[in-house]
Amino acid sequence: MSVSIFDSFLTTPEMIAAFDDAAIVGAMFRYEAALARAQAEEGVIPHAAASAIAGVCKADLYDIPALIHAGRRAGSLAIPLVKELTRTVALYDEEAARHVHWGSTSQDVIDTALVLATRAALQLLDDELAELGVHLAALAEQHLATPVLARTLMQPAQVTSFGFKAVGWLAPLVRARAALRATAAQALQLQLGGAVGTLSVMKEQGAAVAARVAQQLGLKVADAAWHTQRDEWVRLGMEVAVLTGSLGKLATDLSLMAQGEIAELAEPSGNGRGGSSAMPHKRNPVSSMIALAASRRTPQHAAALLACMDQQHERGLGNWQAELAEWPPLFLSAHGALHALNDAFAGLTVDRERMLRNIAALQGLVFAESASSYLAGAIGRPAAHALLEGLTRRVTSEGRPLDALLADAVKADPQLAAHVDLQQLATLFDPVAALEPARRLAASQLDALRQRMAELDTTHPFHEADDA
Amino acid sequence: MSVSIFDSFLTTPEMIAAFDDAAIVGAMFRYEAALARAQAEEGVIPHAAASAIAGVCKADLYDIPALIHAGRRAGSLAIPLVKELTRTVALYDEEAARHVHWGSTSQDVIDTALVLATRAALQLLDDELAELGVHLAALAEQHLATPVLARTLMQPAQVTSFGFKAVGWLAPLVRARAALRATAAQALQLQLGGAVGTLSVMKEQGAAVAARVAQQLGLKVADAAWHTQRDEWVRLGMEVAVLTGSLGKLATDLSLMAQGEIAELAEPSGNGRGGSSAMPHKRNPVSSMIALAASRRTPQHAAALLACMDQQHERGLGNWQAELAEWPPLFLSAHGALHALNDAFAGLTVDRERMLRNIAALQGLVFAESASSYLAGAIGRPAAHALLEGLTRRVTSEGRPLDALLADAVKADPQLAAHVDLQQLATLFDPVAALEPARRLAASQLDALRQRMAELDTTHPFHEADDA
Amino acid sequence: MSVSIFDSFLTTPEMIAAFDDAAIVGAMFRYEAALARAQAEEGVIPHAAASAIAGVCKADLYDIPALIHAGRRAGSLAIPLVKELTRTVALYDEEAARHVHWGSTSQDVIDTALVLATRAALQLLDDELAELGVHLAALAEQHLATPVLARTLMQPAQVTSFGFKAVGWLAPLVRARAALRATAAQALQLQLGGAVGTLSVMKEQGAAVAARVAQQLGLKVADAAWHTQRDEWVRLGMEVAVLTGSLGKLATDLSLMAQGEIAELAEPSGNGRGGSSAMPHKRNPVSSMIALAASRRTPQHAAALLACMDQQHERGLGNWQAELAEWPPLFLSAHGALHALNDAFAGLTVDRERMLRNIAALQGLVFAESASSYLAGAIGRPAAHALLEGLTRRVTSEGRPLDALLADAVKADPQLAAHVDLQQLATLFDPVAALEPARRLAASQLDALRQRMAELDTTHPFHEADDA
Amino acid sequence: MSVSIFDSFLTTPEMIAAFDDAAIVGAMFRYEAALARAQAEEGVIPHAAASAIAGVCKADLYDIPALIHAGRRAGSLAIPLVKELTRTVALYDEEAARHVHWGSTSQDVIDTALVLATRAALQLLDDELAELGVHLAALAEQHLATPVLARTLMQPAQVTSFGFKAVGWLAPLVRARAALRATAAQALQLQLGGAVGTLSVMKEQGAAVAARVAQQLGLKVADAAWHTQRDEWVRLGMEVAVLTGSLGKLATDLSLMAQGEIAELAEPSGNGRGGSSAMPHKRNPVSSMIALAASRRTPQHAAALLACMDQQHERGLGNWQAELAEWPPLFLSAHGALHALNDAFAGLTVDRERMLRNIAALQGLVFAESASSYLAGAIGRPAAHALLEGLTRRVTSEGRPLDALLADAVKADPQLAAHVDLQQLATLFDPVAALEPARRLAASQLDALRQRMAELDTTHPFHEADDA
Repeated sequence: MSVSIFDSFLTTPEMIAAFDDAAIVGAMFRYEAALARAQAEEGVIPHAAASAIAGVCKADLYDIPALIHAGRRAGSLAIPLVKELTRTVALYDEEAARHVHWGSTSQDVIDTALVLATRAALQLLDDELAELGVHLAALAEQHLATPVLARTLMQPAQVTSFGFKAVGWLAPLVRARAALRATAAQALQLQLGGAVGTLSVMKEQGAAVAARVAQQLGLKVADAAWHTQRDEWVRLGMEVAVLTGSLGKLATDLSLMAQGEIAELAEPSGNGRGGSSAMPHKRNPVSSMIALAASRRTPQHAAALLACMDQQHERGLGNWQAELAEWPPLFLSAHGALHALNDAFAGLTVDRERMLRNIAALQGLVFAESASSYLAGAIGRPAAHALLEGLTRRVTSEGRPLDALLADAVKADPQLAAHVDLQQLATLFDPVAALEPARRLAASQLDALRQRMAELDTTHPFHEADDA
Repeated sequence: MSVSIFDSFLTTPEMIAAFDDAAIVGAMFRYEAALARAQAEEGVIPHAAASAIAGVCKADLYDIPALIHAGRRAGSLAIPLVKELTRTVALYDEEAARHVHWGSTSQDVIDTALVLATRAALQLLDDELAELGVHLAALAEQHLATPVLARTLMQPAQVTSFGFKAVGWLAPLVRARAALRATAAQALQLQLGGAVGTLSVMKEQGAAVAARVAQQLGLKVADAAWHTQRDEWVRLGMEVAVLTGSLGKLATDLSLMAQGEIAELAEPSGNGRGGSSAMPHKRNPVSSMIALAASRRTPQHAAALLACMDQQHERGLGNWQAELAEWPPLFLSAHGALHALNDAFAGLTVDRERMLRNIAALQGLVFAESASSYLAGAIGRPAAHALLEGLTRRVTSEGRPLDALLADAVKADPQLAAHVDLQQLATLFDPVAALEPARRLAASQLDALRQRMAELDTTHPFHEADDA
Repeated sequence: MSVSIFDSFLTTPEMIAAFDDAAIVGAMFRYEAALARAQAEEGVIPHAAASAIAGVCKADLYDIPALIHAGRRAGSLAIPLVKELTRTVALYDEEAARHVHWGSTSQDVIDTALVLATRAALQLLDDELAELGVHLAALAEQHLATPVLARTLMQPAQVTSFGFKAVGWLAPLVRARAALRATAAQALQLQLGGAVGTLSVMKEQGAAVAARVAQQLGLKVADAAWHTQRDEWVRLGMEVAVLTGSLGKLATDLSLMAQGEIAELAEPSGNGRGGSSAMPHKRNPVSSMIALAASRRTPQHAAALLACMDQQHERGLGNWQAELAEWPPLFLSAHGALHALNDAFAGLTVDRERMLRNIAALQGLVFAESASSYLAGAIGRPAAHALLEGLTRRVTSEGRPLDALLADAVKADPQLAAHVDLQQLATLFDPVAALEPARRLAASQLDALRQRMAELDTTHPFHEADDA
Repeated sequence: MSVSIFDSFLTTPEMIAAFDDAAIVGAMFRYEAALARAQAEEGVIPHAAASAIAGVCKADLYDIPALIHAGRRAGSLAIPLVKELTRTVALYDEEAARHVHWGSTSQDVIDTALVLATRAALQLLDDELAELGVHLAALAEQHLATPVLARTLMQPAQVTSFGFKAVGWLAPLVRARAALRATAAQALQLQLGGAVGTLSVMKEQGAAVAARVAQQLGLKVADAAWHTQRDEWVRLGMEVAVLTGSLGKLATDLSLMAQGEIAELAEPSGNGRGGSSAMPHKRNPVSSMIALAASRRTPQHAAALLACMDQQHERGLGNWQAELAEWPPLFLSAHGALHALNDAFAGLTVDRERMLRNIAALQGLVFAESASSYLAGAIGRPAAHALLEGLTRRVTSEGRPLDALLADAVKADPQLAAHVDLQQLATLFDPVAALEPARRLAASQLDALRQRMAELDTTHPFHEADDA
């Protein structure tokens, strides 16, 4: 596969390669070779035939564009591929040629090839997820006690810890990494059913052959051919989509915090990254851009997979073929987004000063709730609330900070002054003190996530079985 | 909730009730009551206050339409609900009123209410899935040896067993039932984070309060507030969508087999079911209609959930609210489809004779592959293939069945006659013999599925905890 | 129709009423009455029968929930409705009862009823569009010379006119209003085809009857029954979706400019609008919230309509029914968004001072491009570019504004000083001068838009024909 | 652009070429050349500079893969392209290099290039639509009097004319062709706004330059830069989606009628088209497959465009880039479907005999409604209905055709025999007589469509302006 010029900006060369023509055709030949070998081992075809077949199951012996061209007319890539393979085997061993693709069907080879390509694609995602996890965990660790505005409904709300925010970005990614592995364990299965899914040509030996092919390719043996039961496959696609959704959330926050007027975060720049020829001051958030594009496109690609599930009878007309074409884009987008975000977080600028200034610019208003709570103990909740409400309005009209207005109010009212400790009142307006609950929760969750990440790092479920 | 007139045809009254206004508002009050009790148990608020609050947390004390009206202006249903609750508590106990909704935020109560409603909705799905499983398993059992055409790319392909087909419908549903439970075990969790997810108002006691509220409501304690980390929630939505996709596949097959010209299956009729006033002969497949409608709509509702995942900062603007509204339709469609299919399978007509006649109408062509295999042993594959190809063409042009033509050909050719057992040749054209591989696979898979179903029947994960 | 509690926040009572049960059933009866009258006028049925039928075609004579209940079993609302109508007519005139729904089919009455409801819905959209146009045109007029930051890729870019921005919001809405009318002129057509679209029962008189029914209901006569040719209908749905997309763009800008740290715009507040009980300083952008929710949901509803276009043969199974259910949500979202934005723009706060301060905070960087252009004339482009690049870097490192640094540089370099007019240089950094090109373009486009709006205001294409 | 191996089966080489890398980069250079020439004509830059620039605006002078690689880092293809163009111009004329891309921005050149590529793509669609129109009109003409079953809800309903059905396929395509042209007339417009859409660098001359560039490229002058007002552009995408929806409906009918058990239509076969190596009798409907795949995928691509409309401020972050990538697939699918259907209809087999046999197999039931009408005149409607209802049941139980049962019933009942003309009764069961209403309507609509097609054939709106 290659992709369109506009797609190529939004993904990586590695993921393009994972699903390109050579990868798919190569995987188809791996399937045919494994099938022949398995059938020989089970006595379904002669060993010599299996050797002859496996010997020419090499993608570089064939004219791939010509196969694709012929496949378009046939309605399936497998038909010309099997034909050319048969012709090539026959050049060396005419008898062996009779055993090519024996008992198998187009969908067996195509689905299995896509499963093999997908396993490699999952490794790419898993690697980037591990790396992004490391970046985010370090960021969280470093900023557990960094105060930053929490914002709800796109308005400043209260003060939180920037580390808490980073843990909130990290947790869904750790869950996604685990969930992808668990779902893949079901979905990465051999497709082998023959013409209508019943393995009828191989008679009693069908199941044993299937087990051997699956073992050779390092795939799960399916409970049954899944030609038109796509649930386990689509479920894997949904996991990729959920991952991209979480990346979209992260990129949304990043892009909002990187706005020039907020400027708490900045993506790395330099060397042509995110520059603008016309506007020398610009530092465009290119990583956010890619991740946001992914999160806009992916819901539709996920919907397409779901919309293709109603595959008719024993092989779908149109919906199966559409599903195949809609599958790679999910991975292209997810990997593009992950890679871009790793790039951003590897060189992220965090401006603690600006975070504090943005809090300060709100003139204490974000601490109104806790001041009100404190005063309630002294003068009762209704009086406290009324006092704060009035002062809050004056903050805007007079342009003075709430803590100053409140201190004045306390001093001016002897009754109030008697009950209020001005020192303690001041600490309520201290951003670092205010973030303590967030810091505590984040530290604890971060520990748990680090442990989960370490566990995930100990296995590599998508490494290829050696099926040579 | 009520639904539009066109929606109401495509779902069930039970699922409408699961998400209707009374259910949601009732669940919101259950949350508020549980919160107050939990806070009292942890010493955060007085026990008397908790009792006063819990005592009026009853939906029927309030004017729900008025709450909705006020909520529209506020931008959240929780704001007027908390206000009315506070006002009502104050009628009895002014001090207690200060403790209503303490340390909580709108999203806590709304998300948790939707979680509670969803648990009930999942029970409805689980029940229908169990029932449909029973129908399909019985159907499969009964028809393991019933020959029926297998069809690929919407063309007759070979002969299979109707029981095999039914097992193919059943397996994804058993997987879906298990997967829904597993996903729900993660997704049915308490939402409790306070204004910005940090539980800051409850200080050190936040975690303990959360644990008690979750326990009372029978929900999982979340690792952290998931105000804007929607991955676990959306993953549950995706599971429902995958289920509906599998139902769409089933309904597609059913509707195709019920076509008047194929007539192998028929939905039940009578008592106004699927009739037509104008056309007395019509027997409309109403159940298929509902399931097909569900499978057309659901991919988009799933996409909407994914598209809403990029929730900004600590509470989303627009995307959270859209997600809430897009959630119930997934369940409405799935339950409508399940219920309709149970209705259909409870009274399904299976016409074995017609299945055989449809096979016969193809004049032996669907057995050409196996005849060719057999003859290959006698006269070599190339000669066998050439012979069959010629005869196949004559079937169409002469209108005679392939087995007759082949028998004649054998008799006419002494060399062929010497190697071919006409008796054995005839069995290759026997539909019942032909389905044997399918029967064997289906019987074995059905056993495994029955065992899985029995395991699933032993637990009832969505039964309500008693939180009174 | 009623809608779910979460839907009800995102739309208006008026649009809910336009598609509610009473509206749809009422429109079905209007169709049946018009059909009977038209058939009498063409001599197809007796005049007395038509009078008897039309006389009881009144929704309030019937038990609508019971009709819906019965319709669910039948698979169509029309079947019980026609049955009850026939029964009711027969109470008065048994002979007339034979002529009820004569030559018509379920889809005729249901589709036509939805067309009638849609016409009323379009009037609601048209009215809100007119009002929003007035708000935006006034806003643009007022702020043609108000400088504001233009932002690209979510970074400050240059200075533009706020009026220019407002014209950019307005223009797509004026186009949408015109396009909705043009598309509706094709889509608001009578459905009347009889059982399979051929009007066969009415023989030669079919066309004349259709013309009379259409005339009575104020609908277009279709070229042919469009039972399964949904292109014109879906095209109208796409127009609504495009409108909502443009509203989403507007709401996105509004919500970004209303962020607390940018604060150039604010939605109105007070009287419970967008408040927060916990955080007294919050002013939540409730209108943006509603419009953003609409723009998240609508693409999926549009996709659903497209996904339902493949309606089989002469009446679709599942896809037609799904299309009906997916239709109203497009209008509910669009009207909710329009109404909310009218609410916001009726009381919008525009903070010109803050707009200027946000420009000033960038310390002249947004004028670098024009300064470079000016200096290029004096010292050549390469030298000018190099000079500005260096100064730009110093702005960030030294925290001094670019104009000051540039003035110093000119004064310090006699060669430069000889060619540069410091006075003129200063004007390059004047926001009001900088917005002139934007002001000019906006003023001219605004004139054209006002004229187009005035033209649109002269007709009222969706006012109901009087079909009594 | 190239596309994935699975995409390549579902589209055409011509449409791939219309959007491939060379096409897009070539169009970008055409834009840059036209801009320079236009600016020279308006005196904004020297004529010599324009010549120097235009002289090297040739895609084959540049290393396109290197541009793409660099663009990925920059976040935009335009940045490296303008840089390389500037460098190349400077090799010949250093002064001219200063004027490259003057006053323009990345989005200007990229959007305009996509507009130019889209114009060529529309010509491809228009050509195929014209051809498919010719096929369908001829088919309709030929079969105006060919009886075929009309089917509703996937059940046989009544008899119609196959020509009527074909007209029903044709009409939406004629409408689509006209609508695409009308929408394109608005959407094929120049993008030229400069950095933030205000043409500020070109001062008063901006509008005149834009007019000249548009004229050179044969594009409409936009009312304003449409950097983030995407309504007119997206509207064009929706038209393509509606077209594909209508093709999906056609392909659905075709695939249903081509089912082996119905066999009224067959796609052409031979020469490797739609064959199966394993199953020699198979004749797979490859064209339907491609069109059905297109209609499954397109709703999601349309939704993606709508989901990208909320572009922030003056240039979108992520959504603009996603929109670009989602645009070509709409055209790839539509053209693949159109081309495939032209291939099918060029060699379509229509089996009139089978159509008649399928009617006959229903044993007169599809004529029950008209028989009932006729008898109502003789013995009153209630008696007629009761009689038919009884006979209808006997058709199924006894396996005798309705007309024979009815004739017997008439003969056996002297009263009935007195009022019924057996000859006339027999004609009610004549398929050719039954299709007359359908034939009449279809003939008239076909005339109108032919005239519309002839009008459309007289203009060629997408032929390229000569901008050399």
